[in-house]
Amino acid sequence: MQQLKRLTIGAVLSIFSVQILAAQVLITKEQKQNATQLMQTALKSDLGMEIVTSLTTEIGPRLGGSEAEKRARNWGLKLGERLGFDTTKIEEFTMPFWDRGHLHISLTSPYQQDLYGTALGGAAPTKETINANVVYFRDIHALTEVKDNSLTGKVAFIDGDMMVKSQTGAGYGQANQRRRIGWQHAQRAGASALVVRSVGSDSHRFPHSGMMSSDGDKWADIPVIAISNPDADHLRRLHNLGKPLAISLHSESKWKGEVSSGNVILDLIGSEKPEEIVLIGGHLDSWDLGTGAVDDGAGIAITTAAAALIAKLPKRPKRTIRVVMFGAEEVGLLGAFAYAKQHEANLKNHVLATESDFGAQTIWQLVSNVNPKATLLIDEIAKILSPLGIVRGGSDVAGGGPDIIPMAAKGVPTIRLNQNGRDYFDLHHTPDDTLDKINPNELAQNIAAYAASIYLIADSEVELKP
Amino acid sequence: MQQLKRLTIGAVLSIFSVQILAAQVLITKEQKQNATQLMQTALKSDLGMEIVTSLTTEIGPRLGGSEAEKRARNWGLKLGERLGFDTTKIEEFTMPFWDRGHLHISLTSPYQQDLYGTALGGAAPTKETINANVVYFRDIHALTEVKDNSLTGKVAFIDGDMMVKSQTGAGYGQANQRRRIGWQHAQRAGASALVVRSVGSDSHRFPHSGMMSSDGDKWADIPVIAISNPDADHLRRLHNLGKPLAISLHSESKWKGEVSSGNVILDLIGSEKPEEIVLIGGHLDSWDLGTGAVDDGAGIAITTAAAALIAKLPKRPKRTIRVVMFGAEEVGLLGAFAYAKQHEANLKNHVLATESDFGAQTIWQLVSNVNPKATLLIDEIAKILSPLGIVRGGSDVAGGGPDIIPMAAKGVPTIRLNQNGRDYFDLHHTPDDTLDKINPNELAQNIAAYAASIYLIADSEVELKP
Repeated sequence: MQQLKRLTIGAVLSIFSVQILAAQVLITKEQKQNATQLMQTALKSDLGMEIVTSLTTEIGPRLGGSEAEKRARNWGLKLGERLGFDTTKIEEFTMPFWDRGHLHISLTSPYQQDLYGTALGGAAPTKETINANVVYFRDIHALTEVKDNSLTGKVAFIDGDMMVKSQTGAGYGQANQRRRIGWQHAQRAGASALVVRSVGSDSHRFPHSGMMSSDGDKWADIPVIAISNPDADHLRRLHNLGKPLAISLHSESKWKGEVSSGNVILDLIGSEKPEEIVLIGGHLDSWDLGTGAVDDGAGIAITTAAAALIAKLPKRPKRTIRVVMFGAEEVGLLGAFAYAKQHEANLKNHVLATESDFGAQTIWQLVSNVNPKATLLIDEIAKILSPLGIVRGGSDVAGGGPDIIPMAAKGVPTIRLNQNGRDYFDLHHTPDDTLDKINPNELAQNIAAYAASIYLIADSEVELKP
Repeated sequence: MQQLKRLTIGAVLSIFSVQILAAQVLITKEQKQNATQLMQTALKSDLGMEIVTSLTTEIGPRLGGSEAEKRARNWGLKLGERLGFDTTKIEEFTMPFWDRGHLHISLTSPYQQDLYGTALGGAAPTKETINANVVYFRDIHALTEVKDNSLTGKVAFIDGDMMVKSQTGAGYGQANQRRRIGWQHAQRAGASALVVRSVGSDSHRFPHSGMMSSDGDKWADIPVIAISNPDADHLRRLHNLGKPLAISLHSESKWKGEVSSGNVILDLIGSEKPEEIVLIGGHLDSWDLGTGAVDDGAGIAITTAAAALIAKLPKRPKRTIRVVMFGAEEVGLLGAFAYAKQHEANLKNHVLATESDFGAQTIWQLVSNVNPKATLLIDEIAKILSPLGIVRGGSDVAGGGPDIIPMAAKGVPTIRLNQNGRDYFDLHHTPDDTLDKINPNELAQNIAAYAASIYLIADSEVELKP
């Protein structure tokens, strides 16, 4: 559909402008050769796996605002120096720190059985161990209809359905409502705590963590716990049998005041237009249950390795290529907002921004949100990427990744190299997000696509702003 | 190979006896029709899924000797009554009870990171939280060479390799040595605790529990913890980088004295030779981390459903069909030994025994360990099972399943309907052994195979003893 729409727009351009566009060479023969060479090198290189192995092994989990995230920033700085970036720096910001702490949750009626759960980001601790009956809600819609103060002394459980696997991750936003806003209704109804079915597409005994939404500037006053899909299935079956459900819950999760975080900025300074910035990146922080391999060690590895391969070309591209390792993404895009604020005056010089933050499976599609002429450039880039199995997608697709949202909102053009996300929500925010889940060949395909496309945009003079 | 061997044995039988065998009808036309009908009914029936759903949902985890296992016995008794067995009873025995208790294990050097572990069966508790350096052993062989008292104040970690997936489960016995006897060497060397790589073929963040071997009548004086494969990979990578490893460990697992367990016995009384018993079964207990769906709720469901389908035939088979739901298998085949002892005088009347305890995937092979004439009967049964995709395997394969070992050792003939075990050790003894892992069609294929083969043996007059 997007392809058709774009062709139609092209057809109504005046003949004059079409002739001008056709006369221009958007990508030179030499640029194309360089891009092809970058792809071939990337496919044979182990650099991406080396980076994500090093990050997950030597730093481990790195919750936004934690001491581990600080170690990760220093790691990122050293990595940038070692890989030949021209400048490397950390830009700090402050943020409120939420700590998961210890949790114990078990079914106590109809019998004793441990549940596999985890606190959701922003949840309050239990004041003392909660022992309470459970009120079952089939989905978030059922809970939103609950009356004020009707759940006093009870624990609410929001069931729902396992996410259907999808290449694009469609369905996550909707499923995620129970995680995001469920607490507001449970708290309004006076519940002692809220338990929700994890938002994930796997049937493993892992809870999926993730941030809740604040209500204005207010966070939950109650503990909120996500349990694994098989545990939620279990509660559903017991509920459907008419068994009374009760749980015991002790959770230490809480806010712990202001701390420092930061973004790591690695630049390859442009040879002709150093002030123009092509920004790529991933997020350096991870949830603390796994080691953040797929989310988002992969994105850090893909974008850093891609830029490092470009750095080995005989000559720097015309524009500056900037790799940003964003801090504190998981806990609210805090690094992204800090970056957009700290660089607000200079965002006009950000000619493009894109992030890799959807796992480590192969890229299948290139979408963009740039002006019509630049769209033709992206079309040409897509042709060059086609040996990687990548097809051209929509040319009016907003958003270049979560950490790009704040700067895209201020007019920075974006592309996105869409990854196959079919298995992404199996691992997303679980203890199981570990290095072994990354396929080196798939990671290398990502790096090849980033290296070629970012090189071509950075070496181009085409303006991308709408 | 086994087929060839059997044919050779057949060839050297005297012409006279071959003629006699050929002249005998091992399976009548009516029996064959009944068997075929049983298979067709089983493939269309939901009974197996109903049983394993009920067991895992209404009882949940059921550690040998626990209150939950007692509830499971009562559940089994009621199930037998409801399904039309002629007699149902519980035969109790006493056993020592080991309780897992709470565990916390985390890496403390080179940095803080929780590890996903569980105590191994028979392990001692920590007296106080252990904070100690880790000595890395590449495998069990490396640890067996360690000198006495050379690990004082240290924690030993036995690495090893992930189990290769295998249809037959080959490799489990060897991999399992680190779980079984590792503690003896760690304790001899004075280690404060032992940590081992889980014995499993999955790369998920689940530890695999399981019983250790006692040393004569002595159990470990130290805590012994299995960690998940990804956690073990992590420690290996850090070790290979030359990083000093240290852990913090607190474990409450311990022996808690004598308790009661029991076997549930459900009989379909034979119409002509009620004293002759064809015994099938599974084990009712499970490890406590999962809900024991695949191990061995499936075996309970398969064998009970198969017998229940036979019970619906117009006439009972000639021999008695006995379903035994063994207690306390996981913790040392305690129900199996109790059964063999309690029925010692009558084992001569057990014409055949077999157990389903290798998951819920499809049966692919029928093996046996019976006399040559009975081998021909089993050959004929295999032909009848062939529409289920089952092939005939060896005719001198000892052992009909773990709980059959004690009675097979006393001369009871066995067959085994070998299941595809390729994914079995992904789930084995983990929190992830839950109902969602069972494929209803595969379970039904198992029930079809059991129903047909057990019916044919129970309705036969062929003696099976060697």
